[in-house]
Amino acid sequence: MGQADEPLRSNCPISFALEIFGDRWTLIVLRDLMLHQRQRYKDLLACEEGIATNVLADRLMRLEQRGLITKDRDPADARKYIYQPTELAVGLVPMLLEMIVWGARSSKSGRNSKLITSFKTEREALISDLQKSIREWAGLKEPRR
Amino acid sequence: MGQADEPLRSNCPISFALEIFGDRWTLIVLRDLMLHQRQRYKDLLACEEGIATNVLADRLMRLEQRGLITKDRDPADARKYIYQPTELAVGLVPMLLEMIVWGARSSKSGRNSKLITSFKTEREALISDLQKSIREWAGLKEPRR
Repeated sequence: MGQADEPLRSNCPISFALEIFGDRWTLIVLRDLMLHQRQRYKDLLACEEGIATNVLADRLMRLEQRGLITKDRDPADARKYIYQPTELAVGLVPMLLEMIVWGARSSKSGRNSKLITSFKTEREALISDLQKSIREWAGLKEPRR
Repeated sequence: MGQADEPLRSNCPISFALEIFGDRWTLIVLRDLMLHQRQRYKDLLACEEGIATNVLADRLMRLEQRGLITKDRDPADARKYIYQPTELAVGLVPMLLEMIVWGARSSKSGRNSKLITSFKTEREALISDLQKSIREWAGLKEPRR
């Protein structure tokens, strides 16, 4: 993942996206922040894939630099922080869901899962419901269309 | 990216997908194979992001192990190979297009591009047309629905 001030390697939007989350862990952190609504460091550290603490700290810093998350003092404990997704991150929900569907279809476990079936017929509703609840939870306004 | 025989870190389909293409280069190679229809090593090596030859060789080997591409002798030069996407890779087109749209929206260059506008209204047609032409080019049959 490149630094925010590194020059882009190309004008391709796939390449641009991969500069931000083209690694093993960044999308795991965004998954936990948005789909599992984990907003504290210790909860993000408890992800089932076993992220290392230095990797988590690095990814959170880069995601904040890139404008995908915000970091604020935890009202419950001022020595700690809470992390929230921004609208830029909420915009990744369609891509994350396509990744879930592809991963579930391709792996042995999820081939007949309910999500795959409902994704076929109710894709738009699923995405907008999910984005709506993430925005509510993260205190974001509905963007203007 | 994990080896084909490594145990999965979790049952999450996002994690499964990232075991396959959670790095800076694998999706660049798949982009060139499918969207730019580059099928020879030297053409893939010429990608505008400047992939290193050992990285390209490694990613092609892993993609073949994972069943996302096939490798055959080049009919024009038996010392060389041609690489083609499989149906598993063609299934990544919706995710790749979502990544393109997100990347184009988020970067300065592509915010008002034609793709973003037409993606809103003609998403399904765009995806199926693209998958159809990749299948034709790669000699794949239409999958049964």
